[in-house]
Amino acid sequence: MEHSFIAWVKQRAARLPKVKLGIGDDCALIGGESMDLGQSDLVITTDSLCDGTHFILTECGAQAAGRKLMAVNLSDLASMAAAPLSIFLSLCLPRENAGDIAAGVFEGVYELADKYRVAISGGDTNVWNGPLVIHMTALGKVATGGSWLRSGASPGDAIVVTGKLGGSILGKHLAFEPRLELATELHRFGAVSAATDISDGLGIDLLNMTVASKCGAEVWLDQVPISDEAQQLSKTSGRSPLEHALGDGEDFELLLAVPQEKLASLPREILGVPLTRIGTFVTRTGLWSKDKTGVKQLAPKGYVHG
Amino acid sequence: MEHSFIAWVKQRAARLPKVKLGIGDDCALIGGESMDLGQSDLVITTDSLCDGTHFILTECGAQAAGRKLMAVNLSDLASMAAAPLSIFLSLCLPRENAGDIAAGVFEGVYELADKYRVAISGGDTNVWNGPLVIHMTALGKVATGGSWLRSGASPGDAIVVTGKLGGSILGKHLAFEPRLELATELHRFGAVSAATDISDGLGIDLLNMTVASKCGAEVWLDQVPISDEAQQLSKTSGRSPLEHALGDGEDFELLLAVPQEKLASLPREILGVPLTRIGTFVTRTGLWSKDKTGVKQLAPKGYVHG
Repeated sequence: MEHSFIAWVKQRAARLPKVKLGIGDDCALIGGESMDLGQSDLVITTDSLCDGTHFILTECGAQAAGRKLMAVNLSDLASMAAAPLSIFLSLCLPRENAGDIAAGVFEGVYELADKYRVAISGGDTNVWNGPLVIHMTALGKVATGGSWLRSGASPGDAIVVTGKLGGSILGKHLAFEPRLELATELHRFGAVSAATDISDGLGIDLLNMTVASKCGAEVWLDQVPISDEAQQLSKTSGRSPLEHALGDGEDFELLLAVPQEKLASLPREILGVPLTRIGTFVTRTGLWSKDKTGVKQLAPKGYVHG
Repeated sequence: MEHSFIAWVKQRAARLPKVKLGIGDDCALIGGESMDLGQSDLVITTDSLCDGTHFILTECGAQAAGRKLMAVNLSDLASMAAAPLSIFLSLCLPRENAGDIAAGVFEGVYELADKYRVAISGGDTNVWNGPLVIHMTALGKVATGGSWLRSGASPGDAIVVTGKLGGSILGKHLAFEPRLELATELHRFGAVSAATDISDGLGIDLLNMTVASKCGAEVWLDQVPISDEAQQLSKTSGRSPLEHALGDGEDFELLLAVPQEKLASLPREILGVPLTRIGTFVTRTGLWSKDKTGVKQLAPKGYVHG
């Protein structure tokens, strides 16, 4: 439902005032001269996590849920190459053990706030009869030279991913490191024309990037970096490791467009995290896979149509 | 739990970076030169509303819930005399009728976004197995001359409220008008030294203001403006209309401190909304009531101790 709802909201909101970049990217861009806020732009992102959907409180505990909430928001900032400034935390706490759960969530948030030097600037706590829902809004500062957007890819740009993909459900979705430092390093190279983070799965997020950039993408299936967890899941899931790498959500790696002429100067890894070229943005819209058998249409969920 | 949790969070967050005004007021203040964001400050507030606690979806419908969410956030901005710029909406939708509920919430938000010319800049939608939880973060721009804070009251300042108080549960809590226009008008007089909105109830919000301002407050019980709804509730609740006016939450009127020398120039009403003096901030800390029987301690919930 999300995409059609977003499209509907954009249309309905067309007569309202605008910010510099609104609904549809990883974050919104606020300010600049259009809002009389000086030269600097703020990047803002917002995410909610629900018990039973994004984490299972009885299995992972409140601290892991809080850490994930912070990491998800910081990953959105990283995907725009923004530096985190400040977060706002809002909790809907179950009546039982509300105090302990609140403290646990806060400790998880604090771990990454301390590591990345982010202010905890406010929030809201509620106790209710439902399961735990935790919400965060994060503010970041646009990097000098401008934000990465989803919409900047051009045909001919290389598709590059950080890290290895798939199988996040086995643990990485709770423990991943937001790629903030890597994004800061990479932004200095000036070699990225578009970026997003892989939250819905490589296929879906790549499709979103091509739609925003008004182009298509050809994925070299034998180059997709597959995680050990994707291999492990494959043994029982009935799906191949590659299908997990293409289709699984919550990798929270960066998906980047890199112009051809910058490719030679792109490092193979940054801060120990590999950067892997997995294909090329192309003129023909849609997602395409390329392997030794030829070029075929690629479904966003990772299945290859014959 | 909220106040002890906030105190604990403030202490735990002491070593993290700071924003200009963080945890504890109606909104946070971000920016200014400290954050290299130019001269202008942003005011940010965040609130979550939960089905069964802040609204009952089956009774009021999704649109009323969305309107309330927007109004609650705008009321926080009004209490700091900030002009709304932009909002972020995050929805945790029950699986059944998720699309219709999302559209209804949006329409309620849109009503006030259109009226007050606020951008809808982004958000997040999730479908889960729990009841509806709706969340908003709102950004405002600090008024020329600076924000109203809770902490600005001094002994001798008059305590002034807008509108009439109590009985909001009979309908006003869903349909109230955020006091944005009134705050803008009033801010021009330069006659307000501290402000908050009445969300937890006059007694509790006044106590919070005195704690932030390091003073006390003496309430003239016979001057408190009592709503018709407080009168009506009193017939069956076993509590007096005054107790409802002092203790009921969600009035979303403004509670103001006005220095003595500005009092004569304060209008009796603005835009049809009465401004009523209900007492004085005093040196002696705590809440006090004054009527023809003398001065007594006043419990934040509205009960007068003999």
